[in-house]
Amino acid sequence: MNAFHSLFNPRGVAIVGSAAPGKIAYHLLRQVTEGGYEPVYAVNPKAQGAFGVSGFPSVAEIGQPVDLAVVAAPPQSMPQVLADCHQAGVSVVVVITAGFAETGNVAGERELVRLAGEYGIRVVGPNCAGIVNTHHRLFATLEVQPPAGGVSMIAQSGALGGVLLAWAKEHGLGIAKFVSYGNRADLNEMDFLRYLAEDAETAVVALYIESVGDGREFMRAVEACTRRKPVVVIKAGRSGSGRRATLSHTGSLAGADAVYDAALRQCGALRVASMEEMFDLCKAFTTVPPLRGRRVAIVTNSGGPGVLAADRAEEVGLSVAELSPELKEHLSAFLPAHCALGNPIDLTVEGTEEGYRRTLEAVAPEYDAVLALNIAPAYLDSLPLARGVCAAAQGSPSPIVAAFLPGPIVAAAVAYLEAHGVPNFATGERALAALALLAEDSARRPMVRLLPDPPGGTHSLPGAGPLLEPQGMAWLKENGLPVPEFRLAADEEEAVQAAHEIGYPVVMKVVSPTILHKSDRGGVVVDLRDDAAVRAAFARIRQAAGRDLQGAILYPMIRDAQEVLVGLSRDPQFGPVVTFGLGGIYTEVWRDVALRVAPVDKAEALEMIRQIRAFPLLAGARGRPAGDLDRLAELLVRVSHLPFEYPDLAEMDLNPVFVLPDGVWVGDVRVIPGMAP
Amino acid sequence: MNAFHSLFNPRGVAIVGSAAPGKIAYHLLRQVTEGGYEPVYAVNPKAQGAFGVSGFPSVAEIGQPVDLAVVAAPPQSMPQVLADCHQAGVSVVVVITAGFAETGNVAGERELVRLAGEYGIRVVGPNCAGIVNTHHRLFATLEVQPPAGGVSMIAQSGALGGVLLAWAKEHGLGIAKFVSYGNRADLNEMDFLRYLAEDAETAVVALYIESVGDGREFMRAVEACTRRKPVVVIKAGRSGSGRRATLSHTGSLAGADAVYDAALRQCGALRVASMEEMFDLCKAFTTVPPLRGRRVAIVTNSGGPGVLAADRAEEVGLSVAELSPELKEHLSAFLPAHCALGNPIDLTVEGTEEGYRRTLEAVAPEYDAVLALNIAPAYLDSLPLARGVCAAAQGSPSPIVAAFLPGPIVAAAVAYLEAHGVPNFATGERALAALALLAEDSARRPMVRLLPDPPGGTHSLPGAGPLLEPQGMAWLKENGLPVPEFRLAADEEEAVQAAHEIGYPVVMKVVSPTILHKSDRGGVVVDLRDDAAVRAAFARIRQAAGRDLQGAILYPMIRDAQEVLVGLSRDPQFGPVVTFGLGGIYTEVWRDVALRVAPVDKAEALEMIRQIRAFPLLAGARGRPAGDLDRLAELLVRVSHLPFEYPDLAEMDLNPVFVLPDGVWVGDVRVIPGMAP
Repeated sequence: MNAFHSLFNPRGVAIVGSAAPGKIAYHLLRQVTEGGYEPVYAVNPKAQGAFGVSGFPSVAEIGQPVDLAVVAAPPQSMPQVLADCHQAGVSVVVVITAGFAETGNVAGERELVRLAGEYGIRVVGPNCAGIVNTHHRLFATLEVQPPAGGVSMIAQSGALGGVLLAWAKEHGLGIAKFVSYGNRADLNEMDFLRYLAEDAETAVVALYIESVGDGREFMRAVEACTRRKPVVVIKAGRSGSGRRATLSHTGSLAGADAVYDAALRQCGALRVASMEEMFDLCKAFTTVPPLRGRRVAIVTNSGGPGVLAADRAEEVGLSVAELSPELKEHLSAFLPAHCALGNPIDLTVEGTEEGYRRTLEAVAPEYDAVLALNIAPAYLDSLPLARGVCAAAQGSPSPIVAAFLPGPIVAAAVAYLEAHGVPNFATGERALAALALLAEDSARRPMVRLLPDPPGGTHSLPGAGPLLEPQGMAWLKENGLPVPEFRLAADEEEAVQAAHEIGYPVVMKVVSPTILHKSDRGGVVVDLRDDAAVRAAFARIRQAAGRDLQGAILYPMIRDAQEVLVGLSRDPQFGPVVTFGLGGIYTEVWRDVALRVAPVDKAEALEMIRQIRAFPLLAGARGRPAGDLDRLAELLVRVSHLPFEYPDLAEMDLNPVFVLPDGVWVGDVRVIPGMAP
Repeated sequence: MNAFHSLFNPRGVAIVGSAAPGKIAYHLLRQVTEGGYEPVYAVNPKAQGAFGVSGFPSVAEIGQPVDLAVVAAPPQSMPQVLADCHQAGVSVVVVITAGFAETGNVAGERELVRLAGEYGIRVVGPNCAGIVNTHHRLFATLEVQPPAGGVSMIAQSGALGGVLLAWAKEHGLGIAKFVSYGNRADLNEMDFLRYLAEDAETAVVALYIESVGDGREFMRAVEACTRRKPVVVIKAGRSGSGRRATLSHTGSLAGADAVYDAALRQCGALRVASMEEMFDLCKAFTTVPPLRGRRVAIVTNSGGPGVLAADRAEEVGLSVAELSPELKEHLSAFLPAHCALGNPIDLTVEGTEEGYRRTLEAVAPEYDAVLALNIAPAYLDSLPLARGVCAAAQGSPSPIVAAFLPGPIVAAAVAYLEAHGVPNFATGERALAALALLAEDSARRPMVRLLPDPPGGTHSLPGAGPLLEPQGMAWLKENGLPVPEFRLAADEEEAVQAAHEIGYPVVMKVVSPTILHKSDRGGVVVDLRDDAAVRAAFARIRQAAGRDLQGAILYPMIRDAQEVLVGLSRDPQFGPVVTFGLGGIYTEVWRDVALRVAPVDKAEALEMIRQIRAFPLLAGARGRPAGDLDRLAELLVRVSHLPFEYPDLAEMDLNPVFVLPDGVWVGDVRVIPGMAP
């Protein structure tokens, strides 16, 4: 924590590098002095200063306490710079300088980290865009200087951080801290997450990542934050080409995007796709208290924009519920008949200071949030309307947010709104999209409980190659999974015997190491009702299998079940991942799959089951009885532990799993052993 | 056409209404004079002028040609105003005045239209926001005055029109004409669409609607436009609450949103959801030529924003294809190793004037469009980069668009880009979303062929209530639909006889006016293989049906078919609509349905079939044979004509239709007669 204190609240800052006009260190000196931070020193061989800052040939020669060095000197000078910093007692260096691992100079970067470690100096970067702490007036970055506030951003891409800071300045978003960590040779996103979790000046954390190192450590670091404050994440590389680009420009292996999605959800972060969404959401989090629910009202002076906002609200999962009769009556006491007393409430020409104020005051108690939407014509001053909105917002039982537009026409009104704590969004639609995510955060974050990894087991699978079905089923049974009674039969007579033991009707399936798609090869015969049928089926299976026949496996016939798929895989970043869906076309065409980083507990497993869009089929839609979701969830929990107990379990599919009203049964299994990770 | 010429290119304009400061007519006079239009006259009882405009007590007393009167006088003065306008030879009045049908004053509005009709005067409004013709310097509106250009907007909501005009001014989008038509008492969206189709100054039409009158006439008017130029549409009321609000504030009946969606698609319009998308798309259409295809390249100076742009590009259906080996080689001749030569191409610090220019010149010939993405740090001047982009765009074989950000930092660069014909978008993502719609327009609009309604038939359904299955099947057969052989049987013996005629195996279904869900009631027995089974099935069905049994219907058993659903309904706005999907959960949970305003031809029917996400199931996925899509399309075409031939056909479901590799068969039918529309 000491290093972070030195980083964001240093007693003195040295800007290391040529201070000649146009050079990076020159721009940094301007930024730092313009920001108002002192004391700052310029360090370069010529001892050149700029912007009133004195120059020194080395940090050591400054002779005053310097905790932080921001370095824009050439890569090859780094050993010397570090030695100098060490001598001067510097705790942290922020290395803006590029030309390390990102351009292939891996050795230079390793040496940088090694030396710093030796000196006990922590490193941000190299190849980064610097840091900001508005509350310390410290702007050691080349980006725009934003106003002070509660949003802290951690950005793998300096440029994207720069966009947020520039918009923050342009549209009034308060920033606490900003750090661009570049190649993350030493300090990385996880370190900053853990620090910002405890940082009192940070109310919400914005995170831009392209990849992470250890996925599970990352999740724990995010959760450390979300236990205290919201975390908004952009994870780039959702698409094929995006991921390709991510790989090439960060040089690290990226896990599947769907796994990132699940992982972020599990540790309580909110994922957004664009900088605009991130901006809006940060603004909402720093100005709006947690939402109690999803009921919103829209109060507007113009029908069309009100309707578009309502459309969007429902698309993002908010409820634009009708006004209560009492509220309608209350409103009609002061609003004339030409106002539409629905939701949206269209004030038309009653969209005055008084109209907005009284309507918002009346509406707010009935809703979880209210949007005051105002489309200003060019000839009218919107400032009084802003006053009306702010008066209503004062002491309102529900948050009121605004969307005053368009652009310059409403500049004074928007400034008034923001100065009085009512956030203004670019459009009504964007305001509502942010509110929807706020509601999601309120509902979800308190429930987050990241499970620790179970202790690593030492069991081994009963084989080094893919398991045959009887092996797989026996292994599942040993491990407590609901496997139906089964028998292996080597010939017709054993099959008949097995059928008697199981009881008719039965199902028979081929057992062969070379037949992967049993159904396609005529290797599955269902609903066998007597001995003759069993004998005939075995003969057919024998013929289908040819030389590789290892027998047939028999099960009781299970009818009228809903079939589901439960899968296990290992992600390069996040390790064991458990998957749930209906299988077949539901998975392949609709990608209707729920996925979690393993292990999961029963509550999370039930969430997975409810998450798929085909859930109605399991819950008893279309005249079917409801499935035994309780046992299905227990099966998911059990499966999610297997890869920890069996380090050599690479992949597994239970497909199908039969879900009945009073139980679940594994219908088939495919187990792929692999190297222990 | 004469009226439109008078409206947009009048020889003189009278502003009718009190010209006292703060009044609507006062603001209008300021707008019109600031815009530079002449001659303009103020008309009000006091003959008061403003802003150097002379006042007259009546239009007739002006004594000069006046083609257009813009009226902001009280509703009750309208008869007098119209009489005056008539006397003065005015051709069109734009009635800004509110207080007509929208507040319940339907009689006043009717009288206004009646009088105007008597005088041969056309009316825009009432309750509208006026009109603009930038090319005539005429700004007869209260909204912001935008720069001149090729976009014309028709807006049912004046406020939304105002937003577009304000953004047009703020972000440099050229506007040709604008009209807000308010209550559309006389001239409506269809009149304006037909006029703008022929208007040489209009390159693209932006349309905001909440509802339309006659859906089919509307489609023809849109198609008149799309035959010549792109039409971008926002149709509000997508959601339940949005539609509710639309109903209440326009007082008209809204058709189902999905039908609007299909209708707009069929007449070649592009539907967008937000004003931001509409703005971006209008900008793209007026600056970028039609796209040949969907291959885009992204050239950036910053990895992160490049990846986010690539992610979005793929989400909107563009291809961010890898560079060819030749292109890579070409680029590596002048770009150093630390540039990422993928797609996106990340120039990093080589994102200079030369770097952008040479890279864009090299890349453009290989792609259908190129995005030049530049994230400017605060300390660097982006103007040279804009010069580089514009130099490459000059004579480029593929369009180059830009996203220079953030905000004020790049203001000069953006101004340079736009002045040199390179459109700049708010973010890379928004630029690519617009390009994707451009590509869709290029591919789709030339193919649009709106079918005329077939001549109205005089046939009647064989019954006034819902048809029983045998009736329905017989009727379908008469009308040329592929109905399998079937027999009606009154008892066991007739059933056996029928089965013999059809040939085993057969299916038997109950016929009863009171059993709607035959399967749920045990009224369907499949795969009957001999006389005994048929007798037993009939007995079961008799028992299930009770007193209302009218017999059983027998069909040949059809196996291994893919089942689909074909439906017909009548939309209040658009009339007959044909629906196609897989039925069951596919329709109910996934809403995976294709829908068209009827009739459709075979090409359109094939489009419908290909449009559903479950199409792979019909095309032969997962080891199934492909279905007979040709005959399925013919069935859709045939079905789509029935509501025209049978005016009393209200609703019909063919569910299932069996799709086999060599034919399609109707499996069941539900026909609901109704009043002829």
